[in-house]
This record gives sequence, C-alpha cells and structure tokens, in this order.
Amino acid sequence: MPSSDLAAIYRRYIDCLNRQDWDELHRYVADDVRHNGRPLGLSGYRQMLVEDFRAIPDLAFRIEHLVCDPPMVASRLWFDCTPVGMLFGLAVNGRRVQFAENVFYEFNDAGRIRNVWSVIDTAAVAAQIADAGLN
Amino acid sequence: MPSSDLAAIYRRYIDCLNRQDWDELHRYVADDVRHNGRPLGLSGYRQMLVEDFRAIPDLAFRIEHLVCDPPMVASRLWFDCTPVGMLFGLAVNGRRVQFAENVFYEFNDAGRIRNVWSVIDTAAVAAQIADAGLN
Repeated sequence: MPSSDLAAIYRRYIDCLNRQDWDELHRYVADDVRHNGRPLGLSGYRQMLVEDFRAIPDLAFRIEHLVCDPPMVASRLWFDCTPVGMLFGLAVNGRRVQFAENVFYEFNDAGRIRNVWSVIDTAAVAAQIADAGLN
Repeated sequence: MPSSDLAAIYRRYIDCLNRQDWDELHRYVADDVRHNGRPLGLSGYRQMLVEDFRAIPDLAFRIEHLVCDPPMVASRLWFDCTPVGMLFGLAVNGRRVQFAENVFYEFNDAGRIRNVWSVIDTAAVAAQIADAGLN
C-alpha cells in the first residue's frame, strides 16, 4: 500500500474517532487489535474510546505530525480539553489541560490497525494541575 | 533525501549516543536544535545527553520501531537500565526499570536533527517503583 493511501486511511480513522462513530470503527481497527501489548480486540478498543469521551466530553483528536512508512504510521496527537474528573490518576476536575500523545500504529494487509504503541505526556498534565494549585 | 538514507543517518546518530561520542554529535544534530519546543542548541543538547548518562550509567538506546518519511523520523526507543538515583522525579535508586520513549525528529536539508518532540513513559517507571515497594 502506498504511503499516501495509508495516510488517508489514518486521517479517516481520526475523523471517525472525532465523530464518535463507533459503528464504523471496524473499518479502521482489526478484530484482534492490541494496545500497548494488551489484546483488547475491537470491542475492548471501542470501550476504551467510549470511556475516554466519558472522561473528556470535549475530547478531540488533532494530528500535529504524521509519519507514514507502510505498514507503520507514527502520529503526534495534540489534545486541548477539559476532563470532568480524574484523568491519568490526576484530579483535573474541569480544568483545561493540553498534552501530547506520541503513538505508533502497525496496520495489517487489509489496512486496519492491529497494533498500537502509545505514550501520553501525563507529566505535562500533572505539571499543569500543580501550576493551577489544585493538588 | 530517500527514506532509506535518513534511516541510516538516524541509526548512526543512535550509535553515536550509545558510544557517548559527543565530539561527533554535530554530524547529526543542528546548531539550532529545539527539544520539546526549547531552543537548546547543540551545546545544550549535548549537556542534556551527558546528564542522562550520569543519571543512568548503563543507559543504552535501542530502537524498537523506526518510521521514516523525510524530513521526519519517528522512533520508539526501549530502555532497560538501572538509574543510580532520581529519574523523572522518582527515587529509582539503582532498581532496574524498563520504559519506552516515543519520539519524533525533523531533519534539516543537511541531514541534521533540528526539532525533537519526545514523550517518555514516566508512568511506567512510577508503576515499577511502586510495585517494588520503594515509594
């Protein structure tokens, strides 16, 4: 698959997340998807995303950098949001926070994500909460 | 620059770090390099690396995933090491810890790194220290 095709698929995946269009998630995520080594499967992956939007009602995925080299995609995502309660074990409680996620994806031959290796900058969130004097 | 050339340059950069060959660092890192938005410059970047090896004498950079799409490189690095004292604000104190860094690089036209956007999985280190009953 050409790199440009994989980039287009990835951007449609991100659009799908931002629409919370969970019935379309199977177009982008494999049945046997693993996330940071955990065999979540499509249903577990969907549940993880549903819970993310419950914790962060104004959650939006914004691509800051996209690096494609099939079958791999690397994306730096940027979040600017107001989690309602706890996030990453931190009492955010409706404060606005900004943070990055640097994430690698491996796609299968059908163009679906089968492996995700994600690191979220939780330290940045902790620093913002500390600055706000909430902790 | 072809993707394969940039991948080769990046692998030589990682070899340079693992040799702690700081006099060669300028071959891979631009004078005006920025790290997570901070204008470190080559000397500040070198100092950061020297301090990393002081904190972690057995530090070794191992590439787990490499995604090249010039002028960008994304790399998932894996660390298995024994920091002597504090690391990321955590009292590691000689325990063995394992963690990932997901990092994006932008190269300039001369094939040198001019921007780095890094996220380190500090939460994984915190969890390993907590499991060890040291905190």
